[in-house]
Amino acid sequence: MHSLIQIFLDQHNLDGFLFVGDSICDADMYYLTHFLAGDRFAALAQEKTTLLVSSMETGRAEKESIADKCLSTSQYQIREKLKRSENWEEAYCQMLADFLRDHSIKRLGVPFRFPAGIYQHLIQDFEVKVLESPASRFREVKTAEEQSAIADTQRACERAMRQAILLIAGSEPRGELLHRDGMPLTSEKVRSAIDISLLGDGCETMDTIVAGGLQAADPHARGTGPLAANCPIVIDIFPRSKSSRYFADMTRTVLKGEAALDVKEVYEAVCLAQSEGLKAIRAGVSGKEVHSRVSEVFLDQGYPEKEGQGFTHSTGHGVGLDVHEKPSLSEVGEALKVNHVVTVEPGLYYHDIGGVRMEDMVVVKKNDSLNLTHFERKLVI
Amino acid sequence: MHSLIQIFLDQHNLDGFLFVGDSICDADMYYLTHFLAGDRFAALAQEKTTLLVSSMETGRAEKESIADKCLSTSQYQIREKLKRSENWEEAYCQMLADFLRDHSIKRLGVPFRFPAGIYQHLIQDFEVKVLESPASRFREVKTAEEQSAIADTQRACERAMRQAILLIAGSEPRGELLHRDGMPLTSEKVRSAIDISLLGDGCETMDTIVAGGLQAADPHARGTGPLAANCPIVIDIFPRSKSSRYFADMTRTVLKGEAALDVKEVYEAVCLAQSEGLKAIRAGVSGKEVHSRVSEVFLDQGYPEKEGQGFTHSTGHGVGLDVHEKPSLSEVGEALKVNHVVTVEPGLYYHDIGGVRMEDMVVVKKNDSLNLTHFERKLVI
Repeated sequence: MHSLIQIFLDQHNLDGFLFVGDSICDADMYYLTHFLAGDRFAALAQEKTTLLVSSMETGRAEKESIADKCLSTSQYQIREKLKRSENWEEAYCQMLADFLRDHSIKRLGVPFRFPAGIYQHLIQDFEVKVLESPASRFREVKTAEEQSAIADTQRACERAMRQAILLIAGSEPRGELLHRDGMPLTSEKVRSAIDISLLGDGCETMDTIVAGGLQAADPHARGTGPLAANCPIVIDIFPRSKSSRYFADMTRTVLKGEAALDVKEVYEAVCLAQSEGLKAIRAGVSGKEVHSRVSEVFLDQGYPEKEGQGFTHSTGHGVGLDVHEKPSLSEVGEALKVNHVVTVEPGLYYHDIGGVRMEDMVVVKKNDSLNLTHFERKLVI
Repeated sequence: MHSLIQIFLDQHNLDGFLFVGDSICDADMYYLTHFLAGDRFAALAQEKTTLLVSSMETGRAEKESIADKCLSTSQYQIREKLKRSENWEEAYCQMLADFLRDHSIKRLGVPFRFPAGIYQHLIQDFEVKVLESPASRFREVKTAEEQSAIADTQRACERAMRQAILLIAGSEPRGELLHRDGMPLTSEKVRSAIDISLLGDGCETMDTIVAGGLQAADPHARGTGPLAANCPIVIDIFPRSKSSRYFADMTRTVLKGEAALDVKEVYEAVCLAQSEGLKAIRAGVSGKEVHSRVSEVFLDQGYPEKEGQGFTHSTGHGVGLDVHEKPSLSEVGEALKVNHVVTVEPGLYYHDIGGVRMEDMVVVKKNDSLNLTHFERKLVI
């Protein structure tokens, strides 16, 4: 990592690259430091990585982070600066400037998402370039350890999917709705079973999708209320391990009751598109090519994208410390590299049928890919 | 809200205030839009609020957000721009510029945390001022609805605290460790009971602290491994409701076994400091004064801050859509206002004893405060 950073700094003629934010929201900061904090801190990447954290956090940072050095804001007289300026942002920027000078910074790089308020202050004293974060680039390619962390989260994801599907499979179609224990089975109830399973596996999740019937025509609808019988139900689970911080992401679509012919056909089309997409993946192929292949399969089968219906989204995305990260499998997807981890998730969406989506997650290899998703594809359960 | 925004824009001579980010991490964006999204979107606050979201999200944004208008990035030809520039950031900035011109923006405000990469681009075409976010200011003062959401989360927080304390109370001191069902009781086990209780109440939590023995000497240590008998255990729970998105925050310190005299004295000192801090709170008093009062109580009782031990942190902070927000009850705390919601959480930390902290959350009133925390203070359980 250090040598990669040094190469990047040399390329861009920089003395260091500065991140300011919290590592819960900024995955680059977590990646570089392994210090998880919800409050703002600074990380300076040079030949060595240095953290600047509040004095409250110094002990924890020293224990938990992989940074080479942890300095405390009190060493830079943050309290005194604050008393003098009575303005938190002003005092923080003054302190950062002292910290940077102490680390022989003249030419500084910052990422696109760097706070504009601090940027504006630092350009007064330093030569600052706003660049794509090198950490974002480095973390696209996953080490063996990272792949194993993602696979672990995927196992938890599959156990949760199993619980959801068992719940739906054990329900009974009565009229238009699914029932269990004499009550309508709801999206909320299925989501809760998923959440409990994930919690038991040390994972957290924010926005699990359990969307049935016409709700699923919107690929991002979370789903709410009673689940319809005889209609596809999209279950999209993307948990994060609380310990490793790595995500997984998978989707299955299931149906309880009788599947109409057009639904079956849509389902088969999605399965075929996914299989072809998976087959297309290997190092050197671009995300754009994979996406084109999937789009082509849909077109060949008579499912063009039209008026916001059909295959309305991209084919996939990278997964890691963020649930959506580079590379992208879309119209602008760049070349895939060995050990990228990406999803392949074609779907079809219609106002009169609802939605069908199928998502696996794979590791890109030299000549093919390794599928991390071990779960059957089955519509009627 | 609209009229507050308009006053702010007039004061600063602006045509609009722009936010770009995701509303999971940026509470200001959630506050203004009530649109929860993990992927980046833009929100322009003028007399009306306008969202600019990906076409995938438009349907959900129209349903869920309180913005006046939801536009889609496809209306601004993001795909075409992307194909032309082959650079996502470049295309996004061009699209934003078109969107801003469409909304008659010449003079634009952006918050401190606005992405520097976009700021740098926009200053080429617009007059851009980086300012403290007006939303951050507005959301310091809580409406009745927000107070009730915070109180609801606090009830869930207390149920989780009850589970944790029952688990510890039902353990047995054997030698130096607490045991339950023949096994050492661990921080992890107690944290898991807290997590399960919170999940059942529709809350999520990231970093619950269950720290016993000398671990608790670091106020931010999460706690790990077997819990010690006869030693204070700090339990600090700060969940967020998944539905309302509002946090609560509370801390209790308990001990199973025999409490040494110095531990009892420290506990009493913290209780007294908290009571005095709570008494000091009312509208017009500054956070600094409350903090001074608490520090004074500790000093009077013979517990000065010295060499990183004693009362090493601030007295409290605002709680709302962020777990730490303004106002601050610290050396630089500003005047409290009616309907601020703040914590009062004095603590004492020693390398040879560990830590004791006590935290309640109150609503600031004209002449006093309303304590939202309904939970006893009791050391030995």
